Amino acid sequence: MTTIFDAPEEFATTALAGFAALHGRFVRLVKGGVVRSTSVPEGKVAVIVGGGSGHYPAFAGYVGPGLADAAVAGDVFASPSTAAVARVCRKAHRGGGILLGFGNYAGDVLNFGVAAERLRAEGIDVRIVAVTDDVASAPAETVAKRRGVAGDLVIFKIAGAAAEAGLSLDEVERLARHANARTVSFGVAFDGCTLPGSAGPLFIVPRGKMALGLGIHGEPGISEETIVSAGDLATLLTQKLLPERPKDARKVGVILNGLGATKYEELFVLWTAISARLEQAGLEIVAPEAGEFVTSLDMQGCSLTLIFLDDELERYWTAACDTPVLRRGGAIATTPATDILAGEDGPATYPPADAEGQRGGACIARIFTEISVLLHEGEEELGRIDAVAGDGDHGQGMARGAAAALEAAKAASAAGAGTASVLAAAGDAWADRAGGTSGAIWGLLLRSWSNALSDDGAVDGRAVVKGARRALDSVMRLGGAKIGDKTLVDAFSPFVDALEKSFAESGSLATAWGHAASASKLAADATTQLTPKLGRARPLAERSLGHPDAGAVSLAMIAGCVATLLI
Amino acid sequence: MTTIFDAPEEFATTALAGFAALHGRFVRLVKGGVVRSTSVPEGKVAVIVGGGSGHYPAFAGYVGPGLADAAVAGDVFASPSTAAVARVCRKAHRGGGILLGFGNYAGDVLNFGVAAERLRAEGIDVRIVAVTDDVASAPAETVAKRRGVAGDLVIFKIAGAAAEAGLSLDEVERLARHANARTVSFGVAFDGCTLPGSAGPLFIVPRGKMALGLGIHGEPGISEETIVSAGDLATLLTQKLLPERPKDARKVGVILNGLGATKYEELFVLWTAISARLEQAGLEIVAPEAGEFVTSLDMQGCSLTLIFLDDELERYWTAACDTPVLRRGGAIATTPATDILAGEDGPATYPPADAEGQRGGACIARIFTEISVLLHEGEEELGRIDAVAGDGDHGQGMARGAAAALEAAKAASAAGAGTASVLAAAGDAWADRAGGTSGAIWGLLLRSWSNALSDDGAVDGRAVVKGARRALDSVMRLGGAKIGDKTLVDAFSPFVDALEKSFAESGSLATAWGHAASASKLAADATTQLTPKLGRARPLAERSLGHPDAGAVSLAMIAGCVATLLI
Repeated sequence: MTTIFDAPEEFATTALAGFAALHGRFVRLVKGGVVRSTSVPEGKVAVIVGGGSGHYPAFAGYVGPGLADAAVAGDVFASPSTAAVARVCRKAHRGGGILLGFGNYAGDVLNFGVAAERLRAEGIDVRIVAVTDDVASAPAETVAKRRGVAGDLVIFKIAGAAAEAGLSLDEVERLARHANARTVSFGVAFDGCTLPGSAGPLFIVPRGKMALGLGIHGEPGISEETIVSAGDLATLLTQKLLPERPKDARKVGVILNGLGATKYEELFVLWTAISARLEQAGLEIVAPEAGEFVTSLDMQGCSLTLIFLDDELERYWTAACDTPVLRRGGAIATTPATDILAGEDGPATYPPADAEGQRGGACIARIFTEISVLLHEGEEELGRIDAVAGDGDHGQGMARGAAAALEAAKAASAAGAGTASVLAAAGDAWADRAGGTSGAIWGLLLRSWSNALSDDGAVDGRAVVKGARRALDSVMRLGGAKIGDKTLVDAFSPFVDALEKSFAESGSLATAWGHAASASKLAADATTQLTPKLGRARPLAERSLGHPDAGAVSLAMIAGCVATLLI
Repeated sequence: MTTIFDAPEEFATTALAGFAALHGRFVRLVKGGVVRSTSVPEGKVAVIVGGGSGHYPAFAGYVGPGLADAAVAGDVFASPSTAAVARVCRKAHRGGGILLGFGNYAGDVLNFGVAAERLRAEGIDVRIVAVTDDVASAPAETVAKRRGVAGDLVIFKIAGAAAEAGLSLDEVERLARHANARTVSFGVAFDGCTLPGSAGPLFIVPRGKMALGLGIHGEPGISEETIVSAGDLATLLTQKLLPERPKDARKVGVILNGLGATKYEELFVLWTAISARLEQAGLEIVAPEAGEFVTSLDMQGCSLTLIFLDDELERYWTAACDTPVLRRGGAIATTPATDILAGEDGPATYPPADAEGQRGGACIARIFTEISVLLHEGEEELGRIDAVAGDGDHGQGMARGAAAALEAAKAASAAGAGTASVLAAAGDAWADRAGGTSGAIWGLLLRSWSNALSDDGAVDGRAVVKGARRALDSVMRLGGAKIGDKTLVDAFSPFVDALEKSFAESGSLATAWGHAASASKLAADATTQLTPKLGRARPLAERSLGHPDAGAVSLAMIAGCVATLLI
């Protein structure tokens, strides 16, 4: 049980604030994350990590000299928003470029990926490394599909040490990828975990059983077996990992990770058996750690992570670091940072716009008024549709995102912003406040669309059509969804096709939009009818992407709503 | 659930070995505990701590520069034996005397107290401080009856810092007592914990409820209430402690402690509310910690510990330390110790004895043969008696202790030891192997008795009678039990009275022993008949002392058995 909380929706942010208050020696709280409270040399590569909350010490506990420069924290088990990632990155960047590290989950890939694009547009060199250590989540042939679990810490440790040593961004990225290629994990769960405010656990492992390969958010494992002795568990865990040992590997760095309710003394007992197995396999154990490093609230269970070291990796694996959760070697001299408060968020500013552009901006704000009403009214129904194959929070997320977008659009319009800027502000607010993958997708969609528009002059139908194609391309590229994956792309793609075709024929945006809205509705209906058959059989990528069919319905609803405004 | 283990009875020792293997930078494993692996200056006061296992990081995780020099670890939730305490102390002593720190539980008071007496007899200056921070366990008027919980770490930290600063043993002891007088804790439990190998939890807290003031071994709390929000929990915890604030206190050191399954993020959420309450009370918070410091296996819950600082305490509370679990300030330069392996246990040696003394030693060994058979046969029945008011392991402990005593007595006798030495060896082995409070009591009883005897000449009846009185005095003084407390004293005291009286009248040890055995049997029977009425109503001291009536029965059985050998 997660038992101690006030408002469940504030659990993650309050926990982060409490952590930062206790660990002021290492970190300072910023909106959406923490950055080092100690001074960092100008030009040093910034290693910035993050992901959902509920995994402490991942990721805020990794911040300190020799490891991460900052950590971004999403809601419990939910990716941080694109805006949060970008904001924390801006605060931690010291001119040497940024390595963004996170576990390989669709929501994180999307939000960190889009944030990286935004930062690159601002002139910051950003590289991304999605950690893929969990061997249970995909076979060795499709390693890029694997999830990131406790290997996160290993890869971030290597990258952090390389950055601290003054290596270039190219080198830090190369080492992080090299470490990721030689790091593997396997976990078992004995019992589920409970989200703050939930009445029951997220999942259940039958008493006396253990779920092999279960993910840190309760993603299905590969099998359920009877709980075995510590000695047999050590055999099982090492046997899952040793087949991935590179031929040249003679040394191994190890993390034996507790998932939350499994205690340190149990890990120590298990360690005696695991170390014996690794030594039997002819491996020299280097700087092993046993404890809680990537937890899953109060989940019972543990995971074993191995990094097969070469000389280069060993140097950075054993290098000094000093963070709330991991400390290596001697002290690292630090001085408090003086410049963290610089660059705090001031009031938003917008590029100048002419009168026609400002009218376009006001029109965008009106459109969001209607969208917000529509999604507020449709919240329950969208939740119901989503609950068939997802976790039922799609309606809530869409309503919250639309409300935030409306607020931002109104504020931008009131401040005299033009069409493109109002739409961009709406998209950013949607991404920042809606949460989850669909929030990020909608934010990206609107922001990409706005890039085709202008702040000056009347709204141009051709630009709107061009923006639709850009938005679709962005969503497909960064969201990783194709047509037929049961996502909003299934409705958005026919929408864009019909919009382009009809606009080319009619030259009228209103006419074209009407046709496009019909096309998206037909596609959404077809998708929705498939929903009950999907169940747990959907492949991992789709499941992680969340709410596929409800997303298509949402898109068709919004397209239809906007059509009524244009006619 | 405690899920990961091999043989449950080896859980504590295997966990300690695994811990020591992982934390070789700080500790080295010795039999029964760990000592610092880094060199310690000659003449420094040694701060040595300990208690039962199942509380990691208490106590092995406290060992390192600026904190403890060594930790002694008993079985899960059981005091370490007298022999283990003495052994670890001898290894860690550097000529400057020893401060022994432990929580105030009858078993620990006894075993650490007896070990201190043994070490003093060897010329080592030893002081003992039993931590009494748990306000729920007794009112402020009887503070000496309070249990030790997470305040352990606070008091040990102060003492460790004082010792590291080079203070004398007098000063280290004074500061530890001063810290203990200004340290208070209160805890709540949301759910029980499960011992390794047990099918069910040690105790249950009803779903949705919290047990206020529950002890870290499941000792009953003061009430059960409905679980409240984090804000209200902060109010509850601080309101229990602030009334004990000394008038002069303006600053407070804090430990917010997780009991095992309550997660760090919950503690961070709670911390935001607790820190606000403390500041509202006009207290300045100094170097607070939130995390797992004294756990109770996988118990759900937390405790709040406050130390009301003055200038002197603040200096040592904030002083540098570097241990597996707590680190303060800058690095402390260390070098690996070179002398730890010196003084390993060699084969036992005994003082020389004459032929009559050796015959006396052989007689003692024969007596233990009979006692061992008797207790092996009586094991189940003694367990049954004990289960009425205790935890039912008395028979097991007595059988294991007697078997160990027999083995030691035979070995000593075979090596030519005399009466006193054989009995002393038997007592030490009993204490070391039986476990728990009754093991310590029996070891103390036999060891004290042996001190009245000699290794030379025939066994002297007067010396045996004198030894009985010594044994009774030791048990009452160090065990803290009086007549009527439903312990073995209720049978042993009439035994000694009758032995003295009858020996004075008859001059025959056999006759006197026969009368004494009858007197102890009558007393034991009277005690036993009261058992079912005791239940949970027995006061804390008795409960902690364990097995009261079964102990009286054991003593009477053994007295009767020996009587048959003497007649």
